Formats: sequence, C-alpha cells, structure tokens
Amino acid sequence: ATTAEINKHLPDDEVEELIDASLAARKNSYSPYSKFPVGAALLTNTGEVITGCNVENASYGLTVCAERTAVCRAVAEGHRKFRAIAITAEMGEKFVGPCGMCRQTLAEFGLDYEVYLSRPDKTYMKTTVGKLLPDSFNPEWVHFESQ
Amino acid sequence: ATTAEINKHLPDDEVEELIDASLAARKNSYSPYSKFPVGAALLTNTGEVITGCNVENASYGLTVCAERTAVCRAVAEGHRKFRAIAITAEMGEKFVGPCGMCRQTLAEFGLDYEVYLSRPDKTYMKTTVGKLLPDSFNPEWVHFESQ
Amino acid sequence: ATTAEINKHLPDDEVEELIDASLAARKNSYSPYSKFPVGAALLTNTGEVITGCNVENASYGLTVCAERTAVCRAVAEGHRKFRAIAITAEMGEKFVGPCGMCRQTLAEFGLDYEVYLSRPDKTYMKTTVGKLLPDSFNPEWVHFESQ
Amino acid sequence: ATTAEINKHLPDDEVEELIDASLAARKNSYSPYSKFPVGAALLTNTGEVITGCNVENASYGLTVCAERTAVCRAVAEGHRKFRAIAITAEMGEKFVGPCGMCRQTLAEFGLDYEVYLSRPDKTYMKTTVGKLLPDSFNPEWVHFESQ
Ligand SMILES: [Zn+2]
Ligand SMILES: [Zn+2]
Ligand SMILES: [Zn+2]
Ligand SMILES: [Zn+2]
Repeated sequence: ATTAEINKHLPDDEVEELIDASLAARKNSYSPYSKFPVGAALLTNTGEVITGCNVENASYGLTVCAERTAVCRAVAEGHRKFRAIAITAEMGEKFVGPCGMCRQTLAEFGLDYEVYLSRPDKTYMKTTVGKLLPDSFNPEWVHFESQ
Repeated sequence: ATTAEINKHLPDDEVEELIDASLAARKNSYSPYSKFPVGAALLTNTGEVITGCNVENASYGLTVCAERTAVCRAVAEGHRKFRAIAITAEMGEKFVGPCGMCRQTLAEFGLDYEVYLSRPDKTYMKTTVGKLLPDSFNPEWVHFESQ
Repeated sequence: ATTAEINKHLPDDEVEELIDASLAARKNSYSPYSKFPVGAALLTNTGEVITGCNVENASYGLTVCAERTAVCRAVAEGHRKFRAIAITAEMGEKFVGPCGMCRQTLAEFGLDYEVYLSRPDKTYMKTTVGKLLPDSFNPEWVHFESQ
Repeated sequence: ATTAEINKHLPDDEVEELIDASLAARKNSYSPYSKFPVGAALLTNTGEVITGCNVENASYGLTVCAERTAVCRAVAEGHRKFRAIAITAEMGEKFVGPCGMCRQTLAEFGLDYEVYLSRPDKTYMKTTVGKLLPDSFNPEWVHFESQ
C-alpha cells in the first residue's frame, strides 16, 4: 500500500481522538443566534489536531462555521495539508454534511481527505471532501483557466 | 408522467433560451478583481427568467456569484420556486460546477431542479442541485432539528 | 451649485418615494431564521429605483442583506452609479446603520451617495456611505496599491 | 483612572509587541488570488495574543480576512473579550481601515477596544472599533429588538 492509501484510512483510535477533539471544541461555540453549537477538528498531514467552533454574528452573513474556523486557524498556524476532519453537531438520527461554504473551503486544500460527520454519542458517518463536492470548482481549475 | 417529472425535463428550446439569457447577463458582470465574468439565468416555476451576474468587491469575501445574484433578485421579485438554472462562464474544456456557496444557496429553495453548466459556445452539461450537494444541509433538516 | 452638490440633496418627495419602494420590497423578504424582514431601494444616477430584500439561508453565513440584494440586482440590470439608498426595518426607537458587509458593498460603488435609514412609519435618519465607513478600504485604494 | 480607561491606553511596548505578532502572522497568509498578505494580532483582556492571517479561496466570496481569522481562532480558544487588535499590511503611504466585514466581526465583541493599523515598518495609526463602525448594528441592538 502506498503512503497515500494508508493516509486514507485512519485507525479507529485516531478517528475517536479526532471526534473527541471536535466535541471539546464545540464547547467554545459562540452561537447565540442559531443556538446550534458545532465543533470541528482537523488532522494535519504532520499529525497535529487543530480545532474550531462556529462563530456567529448579529449580521448573520458573517457567521463562520466550525469547519472554516478550523481551516483558518490551521493556516494561521502554518498548516495547509490535511488528512481528515471530524465535525460534531447534534444532528438527530440523520448524518448531515457540512454546508456548501465549508465544502468549498475544505476543497481549497485538497479533495481526498476524509470527513467524519459525528454526533455527540460519537457515532459517525465517513465520507471525503471530493464526494461532498462533485464536479468541484477548485484551485487546480482556476490555475488551468489562467494559463 | 407526473407534472414533477415533466418539469424535470426542459425542452431543448427552453434550455437554449435559458443559456442565452445567462450569456446576456454575463455582459453586466462586475469582476475587476478576478477578471472572470459569469452569468446565470433562473427559470421560475411560473415561467419567468431571472438573470444574474457576479458582483465582486475590493474585499474579496463580499463577492456575490452570478447564481446567488440571480437567486436574490428572484426572491426580491417574489419568486421562491425554480425549475432550472443555467450558468455560463468561460471554462476551458471541462464543465465545472458552481462553488459551494452557490450550491447551498440553490439548495435553500429545493434540491430537484436542473442545473445547466454552459460555455459561451452554448454546449452544456446537465445536473441537478441535489447531485451537486449530496448529504445536504438544508432547510428541511433545520426544521427537523428544531422540533 | 454643481451637479454633484445637487445630487447630494434629494427632494423630499423623492426620498418618500424611495422609502415607499423599500417598504414594498420588504414584503418579499425571505427571513425564516432571523424573522427580521428588511427592504432596500437604490436610486441610480439615471433615476431608476432598484429594490432588494434580505435572503437568508439555513447556513447563516450565506445570508444576503437587503442592501446587497439591491446592489447586485442593480449591477445585473446594468447600473453602477447611485444617488441614494433607503433601507427600512423595524428598528425600535433608534436608527441603526447597515451592517459592515453592506457598508463595504455600498462603498465599492462610491462614498458620496446618501443613505436613508427608515422605519415602517417612514421617519428616517440621513447619512452617507462615506460617513458609515470612515478610513475605508475601497477600490481606489486597491488600485493605488497595485501601481 | 478606572480600569476601563487604563485598558484603553496600551503602553508603547505592548503596542509594539502586538504589531510584531501581526507581522509574524502575516507570513502564514494564504493569498494566492489577491497576492496581498495581511496579518492580525488580537490582545485578549487576560493578556494573551492571538494571531491570524488572511485565508483566500478560488471562490472569492469565501475569503476570510486576517482580522476574522484572529477573532474566530480566539473564540475557538475560549476568548471573547479583547483589549486591542493590530493589523499589518503593505498599505502605501495611507493608513487604511479594515474592510466592513471585519469591522462588524470585531464589533460583535465590543466597540471600545483599540485598533492599530500598521505597516511593515511598524508605523501605525490608532483608532477604535466604534469609530470604524459608527451607528453600528451590534448584538446589544439585536437583543433590544427581540424584547
Ligand atoms: Zn459551514
Ligand atoms: Zn458561487
Ligand atoms: Zn447587511
Ligand atoms: Zn476584512
């Protein structure tokens, strides 16, 4: 198996650790308008875990989701390559993917990494950035265009 | 065939009309930063065609894509139900879907309507909102949550 | 008096007409999340009145305010020069300015035009885009930078 | 002098430290589209310095400015009260304020804290969140409305 393939299958204990981190991050959520706290935890390709929570605003359009907070924080800390992200919210019975804004933000840094959609009870559904954003508009395409 | 099914298959002349409208709308694009003009044309369930173009800003985060301009304009004109949207940009050889922001905005008003990704030469690829945003986070789910 | 100066003082009946248009636009507001409908009406330099309402989304960050809807719709209809905007919301006793996103969007197309903050009873406070965004980050500055 | 007043006047060495932190943060900027790196450093009321940089996206509307990255990261780390923010960009001769999106995001957490607009040579202009967003739309007002 290549390293790439290995990277695509996180061991169970790392998945659980990532979900735990997203659950902890959720506690810092600033969501007085939606009252819907969300936490996220990114795993970088060098093994760091970087978390985020949603940060809302009286002007709703300025709301930053947990996933985007995690990505921006990771970039600010010098990371741009990711292996996985776990996202935790209270989602009822169904597993629901991130919003389109977050899918596009995740796709800016790659389409292959894993996305774990989790509930507070730590059950989860696994998918990938690419599956969540088929026929995606991404940096590769922009560069192609400008040639 | 049910009305719903009929609605899902626009006749060729209506598709062409919609693409023409998106091409015309593209001429009003305000895109001094990306230099990448895009046009869009929404077909409402009552047969109106509502167009939009991208509107950029010196603060890039305020950029509104053509698709979102069309949706907001349609809502401002009293429409909330759509049969199809055509989106035209200069895309090279590949057909590329709308950005994640636009997928989510389209999904707010339904998952079943058609999306025509078109080039200036009027060739196109057909898809649907739902296919572009699998496992979507949409209003139905929010309402489910708040029960 | 120069044309510029004349443009800066809308006659009372035009102000009232603009406020009426923003009130009518407010009725189309799609605001199921905030339950806070807002209407806006832009007056172009050629005398057209272009309206907008807020258009919200289950993913709050995709919310487009009434002012931005009006600006994007105006651009899509071929307008980029404005004399005034009226914004109407139910604001209690105080007059409250547009959110920062909207101030920046308005500033993209000029700092000198008038802003009328109005209530449903048509009382209003008058200001300008430039007063609402002091020391602004605007297109002129970006162009200066890139020289 | 009250604590509030003391907080409003950062000692020169703390200002310089904050500007240094924003300069360092600027090095992590992900700005391949604008090629305009920006750094920011927030000082919390408990003395921590939290930095951010701009994080852009192929879909321009997803761009997060340095200031908003810093705020979201601070909230994710458990902070919601701030004494000051330093923002550093290459701005030519003029000092230019943050964009409207960032002014509104800063205002969500208070109007009184200081804003230092700085250049790479560490010269700066001092202002406050409230001065940058007059007649602001902020949480206090939303709460007033909903009573
Ligand atoms: Zn999101
Ligand atoms: Zn888009
Ligand atoms: Zn606004
Ligand atoms: Zn900004």
